Amino acid sequence: MESKYRRIDAKIAQLMQDGLGDNTVFIDEESLQKYSHDETEDLKYLPEIVVKPNAVEQVSWILEFCNKENIAVTPMGARTGLSGGALPVCGGVALSMERLNRIIEIDEDNQQVTVEPGVITQVLMEAVEEKGLYYAPDPASKGSCFIGGNIAENSGGPRAVKYGVTKDWVLNLEVVLPTGEVIWTGAHTLKNSTGYNLTQLIVGSEGTLGIVTKAVLKLIPRPTHALLMMVPFLSARKACQAVSAIFRAGVTPSALEFMEQDAIKITTDFMGGSPLDLPKSAKAHLLIEVDGSDLEYLMKQCETISNTLSEFDCEQILFAEDEAQKNRLWAMRRKVGEAVKAQSVYKEEDTVVPRYCLPDLLEGVKALGKEYGFQSVCYGHAGDGNLHINILKGDLSQEEWDVELPKAIAKLFLLTKKLKGTLSGEHGIGLVQKAYMPLVFSDVEMNLMRKIKDVFDPKGILNPSKILPDLGK
Amino acid sequence: MESKYRRIDAKIAQLMQDGLGDNTVFIDEESLQKYSHDETEDLKYLPEIVVKPNAVEQVSWILEFCNKENIAVTPMGARTGLSGGALPVCGGVALSMERLNRIIEIDEDNQQVTVEPGVITQVLMEAVEEKGLYYAPDPASKGSCFIGGNIAENSGGPRAVKYGVTKDWVLNLEVVLPTGEVIWTGAHTLKNSTGYNLTQLIVGSEGTLGIVTKAVLKLIPRPTHALLMMVPFLSARKACQAVSAIFRAGVTPSALEFMEQDAIKITTDFMGGSPLDLPKSAKAHLLIEVDGSDLEYLMKQCETISNTLSEFDCEQILFAEDEAQKNRLWAMRRKVGEAVKAQSVYKEEDTVVPRYCLPDLLEGVKALGKEYGFQSVCYGHAGDGNLHINILKGDLSQEEWDVELPKAIAKLFLLTKKLKGTLSGEHGIGLVQKAYMPLVFSDVEMNLMRKIKDVFDPKGILNPSKILPDLGK
Repeated sequence: MESKYRRIDAKIAQLMQDGLGDNTVFIDEESLQKYSHDETEDLKYLPEIVVKPNAVEQVSWILEFCNKENIAVTPMGARTGLSGGALPVCGGVALSMERLNRIIEIDEDNQQVTVEPGVITQVLMEAVEEKGLYYAPDPASKGSCFIGGNIAENSGGPRAVKYGVTKDWVLNLEVVLPTGEVIWTGAHTLKNSTGYNLTQLIVGSEGTLGIVTKAVLKLIPRPTHALLMMVPFLSARKACQAVSAIFRAGVTPSALEFMEQDAIKITTDFMGGSPLDLPKSAKAHLLIEVDGSDLEYLMKQCETISNTLSEFDCEQILFAEDEAQKNRLWAMRRKVGEAVKAQSVYKEEDTVVPRYCLPDLLEGVKALGKEYGFQSVCYGHAGDGNLHINILKGDLSQEEWDVELPKAIAKLFLLTKKLKGTLSGEHGIGLVQKAYMPLVFSDVEMNLMRKIKDVFDPKGILNPSKILPDLGK
Repeated sequence: MESKYRRIDAKIAQLMQDGLGDNTVFIDEESLQKYSHDETEDLKYLPEIVVKPNAVEQVSWILEFCNKENIAVTPMGARTGLSGGALPVCGGVALSMERLNRIIEIDEDNQQVTVEPGVITQVLMEAVEEKGLYYAPDPASKGSCFIGGNIAENSGGPRAVKYGVTKDWVLNLEVVLPTGEVIWTGAHTLKNSTGYNLTQLIVGSEGTLGIVTKAVLKLIPRPTHALLMMVPFLSARKACQAVSAIFRAGVTPSALEFMEQDAIKITTDFMGGSPLDLPKSAKAHLLIEVDGSDLEYLMKQCETISNTLSEFDCEQILFAEDEAQKNRLWAMRRKVGEAVKAQSVYKEEDTVVPRYCLPDLLEGVKALGKEYGFQSVCYGHAGDGNLHINILKGDLSQEEWDVELPKAIAKLFLLTKKLKGTLSGEHGIGLVQKAYMPLVFSDVEMNLMRKIKDVFDPKGILNPSKILPDLGK
């Protein structure tokens, strides 16, 4: 298919070079290769040019220029995404935000921080923790992902169950529109009932509406204590059921993670051993954390959790004894994705349902696996009903993988919808989930989204071919 | 000015009567009078007809009909709003949601509730509290306002400082568009990264984009204990400064309310006495609540608060001794608005700034009062930086009130903006604040909002003349 976008020839490249100055525009093969992929499956799309602006004025220049010339622009953070949101599917410009990486101000009095999008999430966390403050959202990739990418995908992480996802921490955004115009979406306030919520429209819009160049984020006092426990279950269903019971008992853990047997096995093999002596017979584990500033109160919460869990046939609860053991347990949880990837090509689904429906979702996945002959590894943020389903290619033929599997995935999403859930809890739709959007949204709903896209980006130059099946290309 | 909307003549009234059946359409003078006002100042606009649908199908029929016939539709909740959001400024249809008042399902397993918009907020709260669950947002009008109105205005209340505002509790919405088409904005899930956030675009849109007919709201376990204290200060500035210090000390109270001397005086006079023996010399009071499920931990938090406050020259802290005293203190706080209204015509501004900037805002208000000769009574949600400023008409001439005062208010909002705040924290823009929108938003930002309005409501029939200065009429 002929692209609707203008190709980048020598003349365009020269104009961009002239407009942006030295060391900002790259067309060497190595750069094009580097910015051709994120962490999604083994997908690869070459951009035609890479630009690395270092100021909002340069971002503005780039968008105005590309909008005028009808050139596709794919914004990129650290390219750690799992839905292909940063893949330059239509070629054009790879707009890397890596040089806008300053923490502009930590406002201790108001408990806010102003950052540029290229700051690594963990760098941000550590900078505010030094001041006794806390930025909670902690995607598994926090050591490498950018806060800008977190905003684009509305990322979550284990702590979301207590502290919410990225959107719950964003107060105000500076955004560059395709025209090059720069807006602020709101105010630096905790409450705001002033006009339409442009802030929350931009969060999670995956760079299809505008490019975030500054974010004002809420902070809270840093919790000083955390207790972590690992709980083996002989039944995955019982483990899922226990999740809902913990909340009903009045406790909101700061993490409530589910890992089925295979997730533990593959990861401990990958890591060369387990951080704790986990019973091999366990069909699933819950990793449960409570945090706060009062140790005594946390102990009481652990007691409530223990009492609740005992009603769900759990095995002996293993408490992490020191920081080192805690870190190893968390490292194991965070490495599941990487471990699975090392084993086989896989597709990751990011299903989310109301939390009590988790057992039904899990059993549905396994039934589909039997029907279509695939192995799945399931784990994720059980407290939020957010189950990551890694489907391994394993012995599937390419045809089964390319033609049959999407049918199984469609059935999986229909089940998710039936359970009042949806396609993605925290990874976004990007490229690889967009074909499934009509399963959860009606034509009327999708048309509203298309028209909102048109409001911000009438020529469709921003991150084309993402989110909506028929946008771009 | 000639209205752009079709007037409701006998033929139109008959068609609506035929379409909706008996006892749904009202054109008697008493009904028109009743639905001509909300709680905003002394403003009054007569609708031409009142309709009271009892099902989503009827709402759908009404919107489709009015859209086709180009008739203005003003959706109404309990008409307790303070920004004129429910005033039928262009006549037309007053669409009262009072009959869609069912609590459809309290889902204890998933800690969610599905409600219709006409449920009184307190009725909802009490229904879920019976099940040990909690819906936190508590506007002062909670005993009479509707949850649908709370969603329309993104209402807050004292507890917002710990638990967030209405938007933080809305998971999914059923919405009728002007075409009569019915959509769901999201999923019944705690996390969602699936397409643009239509849910948060509807929350706070004041009925200008669509009509909410069902809402799925998040619930949490009900806190079982609350401790309340009243703290007198000899300096209003010190009281404001203490607010920020409490958070820096690591405590997040479940309410942190500020009342200046006049607010206390007017309200205790109005109520015929004070619930506690408050020192007359105090220039301001903070009403501080902590809540949770562990009394011991709450006592510790109170101790931290006490220690922090002692650095800000507070007088003796008065603890509420029993439920009755707590209720009387809260009743006093909630009655400030009513008490001021009983004293004089007034305008209420709902300014919001980052919380540490509160002292500067307060001093700015008083300086403007001196310059323009008005008395103001200030109180509000200090923990959120949300200051309600009641400007009393008192002895001001009508010309000073109509011509000079708006200039003072514009200056007040410019100060708010300078402090990184905005026009409204929780009351919405509605009719009476829309003229000030260009003070905080650029043309580019306002144009985005106008175009979003066009996406949902191209003929502009829904709640015309609200939010944006030039919409409707």
